[in-house]
Amino acid sequence: MNRVSTLKPVSPVGELAKRYSTIRNTTTELVAPLAPEDTVVQSMPDVSPSKWHLAHVTWFFEHFVLAHFDPGYRRYDERYDFLFNSYYYSVGDMHARPERGLLTRPTLSEVLDYRATVDDAVLEFLETRADEPEVAERIVLGLHHEQQHQELLLTDIKHVLSRNPLKPAYDPKLPQPPALQARELEFLEGKNGVHRVGCDIEAETFCFDNETPRHDALLHPHRLANRLVTNGEYREFVRDGGYRDARLWLSDGWATLMRDGWSRPLYWSEDLEQEFALGGERDLDLAAPVCHVSYYEADAYARWAGARLPTEFEWEAAAEGLPVDGNLFDSAYLHPVAGQSAQYFGDVWEWTASSYLPYPGFQPLDGSLGEYNGKFMCSQMTVRGGSAVTSRSHVRASYRSFFYPEQRWQMLGLRLAKDSQP
Amino acid sequence: MNRVSTLKPVSPVGELAKRYSTIRNTTTELVAPLAPEDTVVQSMPDVSPSKWHLAHVTWFFEHFVLAHFDPGYRRYDERYDFLFNSYYYSVGDMHARPERGLLTRPTLSEVLDYRATVDDAVLEFLETRADEPEVAERIVLGLHHEQQHQELLLTDIKHVLSRNPLKPAYDPKLPQPPALQARELEFLEGKNGVHRVGCDIEAETFCFDNETPRHDALLHPHRLANRLVTNGEYREFVRDGGYRDARLWLSDGWATLMRDGWSRPLYWSEDLEQEFALGGERDLDLAAPVCHVSYYEADAYARWAGARLPTEFEWEAAAEGLPVDGNLFDSAYLHPVAGQSAQYFGDVWEWTASSYLPYPGFQPLDGSLGEYNGKFMCSQMTVRGGSAVTSRSHVRASYRSFFYPEQRWQMLGLRLAKDSQP
Amino acid sequence: MNRVSTLKPVSPVGELAKRYSTIRNTTTELVAPLAPEDTVVQSMPDVSPSKWHLAHVTWFFEHFVLAHFDPGYRRYDERYDFLFNSYYYSVGDMHARPERGLLTRPTLSEVLDYRATVDDAVLEFLETRADEPEVAERIVLGLHHEQQHQELLLTDIKHVLSRNPLKPAYDPKLPQPPALQARELEFLEGKNGVHRVGCDIEAETFCFDNETPRHDALLHPHRLANRLVTNGEYREFVRDGGYRDARLWLSDGWATLMRDGWSRPLYWSEDLEQEFALGGERDLDLAAPVCHVSYYEADAYARWAGARLPTEFEWEAAAEGLPVDGNLFDSAYLHPVAGQSAQYFGDVWEWTASSYLPYPGFQPLDGSLGEYNGKFMCSQMTVRGGSAVTSRSHVRASYRSFFYPEQRWQMLGLRLAKDSQP
Amino acid sequence: MNRVSTLKPVSPVGELAKRYSTIRNTTTELVAPLAPEDTVVQSMPDVSPSKWHLAHVTWFFEHFVLAHFDPGYRRYDERYDFLFNSYYYSVGDMHARPERGLLTRPTLSEVLDYRATVDDAVLEFLETRADEPEVAERIVLGLHHEQQHQELLLTDIKHVLSRNPLKPAYDPKLPQPPALQARELEFLEGKNGVHRVGCDIEAETFCFDNETPRHDALLHPHRLANRLVTNGEYREFVRDGGYRDARLWLSDGWATLMRDGWSRPLYWSEDLEQEFALGGERDLDLAAPVCHVSYYEADAYARWAGARLPTEFEWEAAAEGLPVDGNLFDSAYLHPVAGQSAQYFGDVWEWTASSYLPYPGFQPLDGSLGEYNGKFMCSQMTVRGGSAVTSRSHVRASYRSFFYPEQRWQMLGLRLAKDSQP
Repeated sequence: MNRVSTLKPVSPVGELAKRYSTIRNTTTELVAPLAPEDTVVQSMPDVSPSKWHLAHVTWFFEHFVLAHFDPGYRRYDERYDFLFNSYYYSVGDMHARPERGLLTRPTLSEVLDYRATVDDAVLEFLETRADEPEVAERIVLGLHHEQQHQELLLTDIKHVLSRNPLKPAYDPKLPQPPALQARELEFLEGKNGVHRVGCDIEAETFCFDNETPRHDALLHPHRLANRLVTNGEYREFVRDGGYRDARLWLSDGWATLMRDGWSRPLYWSEDLEQEFALGGERDLDLAAPVCHVSYYEADAYARWAGARLPTEFEWEAAAEGLPVDGNLFDSAYLHPVAGQSAQYFGDVWEWTASSYLPYPGFQPLDGSLGEYNGKFMCSQMTVRGGSAVTSRSHVRASYRSFFYPEQRWQMLGLRLAKDSQP
Repeated sequence: MNRVSTLKPVSPVGELAKRYSTIRNTTTELVAPLAPEDTVVQSMPDVSPSKWHLAHVTWFFEHFVLAHFDPGYRRYDERYDFLFNSYYYSVGDMHARPERGLLTRPTLSEVLDYRATVDDAVLEFLETRADEPEVAERIVLGLHHEQQHQELLLTDIKHVLSRNPLKPAYDPKLPQPPALQARELEFLEGKNGVHRVGCDIEAETFCFDNETPRHDALLHPHRLANRLVTNGEYREFVRDGGYRDARLWLSDGWATLMRDGWSRPLYWSEDLEQEFALGGERDLDLAAPVCHVSYYEADAYARWAGARLPTEFEWEAAAEGLPVDGNLFDSAYLHPVAGQSAQYFGDVWEWTASSYLPYPGFQPLDGSLGEYNGKFMCSQMTVRGGSAVTSRSHVRASYRSFFYPEQRWQMLGLRLAKDSQP
Repeated sequence: MNRVSTLKPVSPVGELAKRYSTIRNTTTELVAPLAPEDTVVQSMPDVSPSKWHLAHVTWFFEHFVLAHFDPGYRRYDERYDFLFNSYYYSVGDMHARPERGLLTRPTLSEVLDYRATVDDAVLEFLETRADEPEVAERIVLGLHHEQQHQELLLTDIKHVLSRNPLKPAYDPKLPQPPALQARELEFLEGKNGVHRVGCDIEAETFCFDNETPRHDALLHPHRLANRLVTNGEYREFVRDGGYRDARLWLSDGWATLMRDGWSRPLYWSEDLEQEFALGGERDLDLAAPVCHVSYYEADAYARWAGARLPTEFEWEAAAEGLPVDGNLFDSAYLHPVAGQSAQYFGDVWEWTASSYLPYPGFQPLDGSLGEYNGKFMCSQMTVRGGSAVTSRSHVRASYRSFFYPEQRWQMLGLRLAKDSQP
Repeated sequence: MNRVSTLKPVSPVGELAKRYSTIRNTTTELVAPLAPEDTVVQSMPDVSPSKWHLAHVTWFFEHFVLAHFDPGYRRYDERYDFLFNSYYYSVGDMHARPERGLLTRPTLSEVLDYRATVDDAVLEFLETRADEPEVAERIVLGLHHEQQHQELLLTDIKHVLSRNPLKPAYDPKLPQPPALQARELEFLEGKNGVHRVGCDIEAETFCFDNETPRHDALLHPHRLANRLVTNGEYREFVRDGGYRDARLWLSDGWATLMRDGWSRPLYWSEDLEQEFALGGERDLDLAAPVCHVSYYEADAYARWAGARLPTEFEWEAAAEGLPVDGNLFDSAYLHPVAGQSAQYFGDVWEWTASSYLPYPGFQPLDGSLGEYNGKFMCSQMTVRGGSAVTSRSHVRASYRSFFYPEQRWQMLGLRLAKDSQP
């Protein structure tokens, strides 16, 4: 059997329970600023209601831990298997994704009760079983899964609120970042030749199956920008007619732009002066990294700038060994900020020029748990580095996330690269 | 100038305020069984969220009464003009109907506060102005408008809840109707020759513009069934292959059936034994009138039964002069029940064979208030008589409501008619 | 059994064969100006390819005459039952209407061969059987059906050619009409009270089932315009902002206008100076009747003009007894022309304010032949009088055609009416 | 400046004209079996009408050769720039791709006249200018472009004819292949380590920009099947429930299967016994390579078979140096045949596990001519090796074609691969 991704026992047994509580509570805290009404709506098929996120991650622990290890476990509600399964076909039928916004029940308070009940059961279960490797593996996997949904919960509610003409803030009390300048743009020589990529399971405590196996990749001579592209730079592209010049765009990108009437990043105001953030409508910080651009837009910008996007291995080779530091979820801005973008981590996920494909020798996890990362290895592009809503403890240099090239509701931005002479 | 529909001063001044309070409070009570989450969702474009109904009818009084009579009136929130205007183009731009389900704010409690504030202002206003005819006219019009939305609120929330696999009841404590038999089906000779139809403004205290002017209609010899078609009769049609025989259906009806996969009335279970009601899933009462059928289904059933639907004037001639009695909103079943269907009022709106068109000499109300009934005089069929969710004080023999032939989320049923020899 | 619409033996037996040949040859001549390529394309679901029209009307005679009367008749090609049946579900399955444009075979020349073979068989059959009433009835019905498709063939090919940026003419050699003025607009008092409408089967030699039975209708006092609305008048409406003022439009009409970006009649150039006709692009004749407007446009124009559309019985009462004269197919312009519009027949079908519904006591034809007019009695509006592509021998005062309110690819125009004081 | 792809002067000057004539005439011969009606239809957006192909490739020579080199050149028809430009935005606006099937004019015979006129002009031009490198480059590029469209013309007309219930053959006289067995399936060790890939411009006379620059790729240990997957093998997968087991499919693939109701390869009969070919409906040859499967199907089959698809470089390393031999267009079967599939060329394009992305250092051609291969480098998968409708002189080991993972109207099949132990 394949291992369940956890590579090493995390820590002493009590630590696991503590980590469980911390991460689970964080999720619950994320909905504290919301009204029950906010937690129901699905503003587009990509978005899930906050309430659904809260329940789905709970179902994950109930199904893959409690019910898995204890055949006598009695479900909180049998019907939740249908409602809160997301994509695990081998588990059974599921509620159609685009209909998640139809579910007014269970209510938010019922979902919170469901969470509390499952949390009690998990913590009780951990008291006696936390030292079994498969238990720890599944708990840790579930917690990383939970952290993924924390990020989605924030980007999804941002989309929901943005569709309201009243433009309500998710949390008007979010901290304001300090006003800083962007550093001068430079292109730095990247690593070259055969290079080892993918998760080093000796060095990391956890990774997803899609980061494995570690293997050799061949890097061609290239240079990488020393920071992310900023709002100010991107606005120059817009003002220069970037959205009206078909030659700058991939064919599919131009078709999307025409169909959806794109003329600027998602959440920018028409006058290019403001943007909608989780803290509400605010002035565009020209020194902050541009955010909420699709792959098509990132690619078109790079072409306009006489550059290209880095490949995922160029990025990984540069990021490897650096501390996971920067404007992440832990900084509490929940928005890209100026002055930090020298980092390879945080602010925005960086679009790469690499399709999201399996690594040589890739094997998905066994059973239902493997019905995830591998199922999406087609038509999506890899993004790297995490964003302002990604937890520090969740991301690493080998971490691969992935989106369709037209998606832009996540915190997505870009760094430029250029070919070098060999 | 056209009058604003109220035909006579309703009653002493204090009565108007009392009636205002009663009807407005009824609306608020309708959402009492709901969780805030229930009030947000728009399960299809025809449906509006409960929260939207609550706010829209309030906006009606704010805009067409408070702001109309007092130029200095200060709006509760200027932006509500955009959010809660429904179709009055002359008032200004409005939020797109299919996007009403995106609005999580204002929350239910904020909307209830909006209601209370406007109610206070209206009642205060009425203390000094209730004796002005135009004031009374607009208040009464607003109250009838409110009653229309009470009905929609119930049918809309029923649809929302029906889309949830958990099948939650709107109110599990609704009364159970007594078990009764349907009376024997008979066809009774209808009125014949030139007959006066439309609202008799001397006899009625209120009507909508679409019921006027009163005029002569020519009735051809016909007979009318003495009661509505029942669930049991309709189930025979289903079991006889009615939904598989194209010859029974209008061309558009068959196309709709094929496209949407219709095989039975909305809310019936696949085994034809149960139906979803506001009180929850329950056994189909075979003696109760069939409900939630489209015009296409009503028409196909009638053809199968060797009959036809009555015209709206055949219906009106039969109903005129009868007391407005039957299973209406006031009965509190909120569902068609057996044994009452001899009535011409209540249980279900009756599909007629008449298109919803203007009467000879029809004039819509002046100004924005006229932007309603007349705008829809195309492609819809007239229905008559009110349903189990229509208020007794709201309906009358001349009352015309109207739906597209494919719609069936309202409480819609049918009575048969036949041609007679002249 | 119901009769097959023919009301009287047309004429001596040889006359029937002669009439058959004449009308059938006319159809074939209609495709003479076309290239084979022109006859394949279906430019929208409402349109059928010319080749399909040629084959379908032939199949009608093969199926409803040859195969009906001679059980031993051997089909030209068994598969044509599937391909060229249009809507007779009781005959069997049929090719989906929106896929008619996928059929490159049989080719035009094969279809013409099919026509010739069936024509030979019908004429041979008529030599011995033309004196049987049911034979004559079915032949005459088939010939009227053929004339309907002649009209459709022309309006359909017009639409096909209009979608080509090269704007090819159907026939560049069509005659130019003389330059004439429109007569002064007057409103003439119409008939009043109970009036007999529907086909008088004693006086007419043929009618469709939807014109029967003849019955009494009650006409309310009204006046009718003495001519059709002209291009010049309609252009004033356009220039006056008619397409930008929601208050003038039915709700569904405004939604259609917004969705499809309507700003003028179909086939008018953007500068409102030219129109596309079967003879090619040409200057708009301001004195000619406006054409290719939907019901929504006709209704909005009438509202703008302070008038309304006539009901179908107001129209019929005025037209009854007049000679069927005017700019019809027989005039060979194939386009509305100035100066003739005093007529009630020809130029353009006139939208009425009446929904297309069954007459009191209506019975469709028995069997498959009845699967037509009655199937469409919902959601369409009645039009009257025929157009510049309707044959004189095909139309009469009681003739009802019908279209959906958004359709405008037929030659559709309007005459104004007004209510009178009683 | 970038060169226009031709890497070496092809041959003596007269040879270029001769090659031009040969390839151009081949295209014209391809439409000889077709009726004019066949050449108009666009059966889905991916398909272009035969007539459009004939005109578009001609426009290519007119625009990029005649008009490019001779500023005084007078266009055959100015409007063809709009009609027959495909995707060169820098050339100007163009007719919308999904509307190509609306163009009945120019007719086939007019298009053939256009071809003849341009051919005369090109041949006359070549008499004096064929020795200029850029002329030869553009002519050769145009001829390869023409060969691409020859292939598309055949696969497109196959799709058009397949949508006709009469199932007409493109050419009923195509040769029948000999009945042969498939060879035993074996997995052969592939090349390993750093390997040179991409077009070797010293060795080849022509390549497209997307095959350049030649560069190092790192191959991981793997084995490749010695032949293509056969119809018989694929049918086992179907019968084993392959199309009903979500676990075998990529998430997008399963969604496509559900949406479009896939249950077998395109063109297979429901009983899995027959397939539609350019020669007409015929028995499925179980020993022949499976054809008309999407990437999703190829990927699911490989998973079911315990294998995977090869990467494009694994494929290229294996094919490099082999003679371009096999069942190609030149064999005249126009369909995959048994017994040849040991070849790396012909029969079917082989889906690879590689996304279609730019090579390191890739530069598109300058100007409008570069608006092609590079515009599509997103969301498509690379296919290799050519098919039974690809010309031998057009394909090579480094040749990359590309399709979206759901497309299957091209002749697309697969070869299996497996990971090896390092």
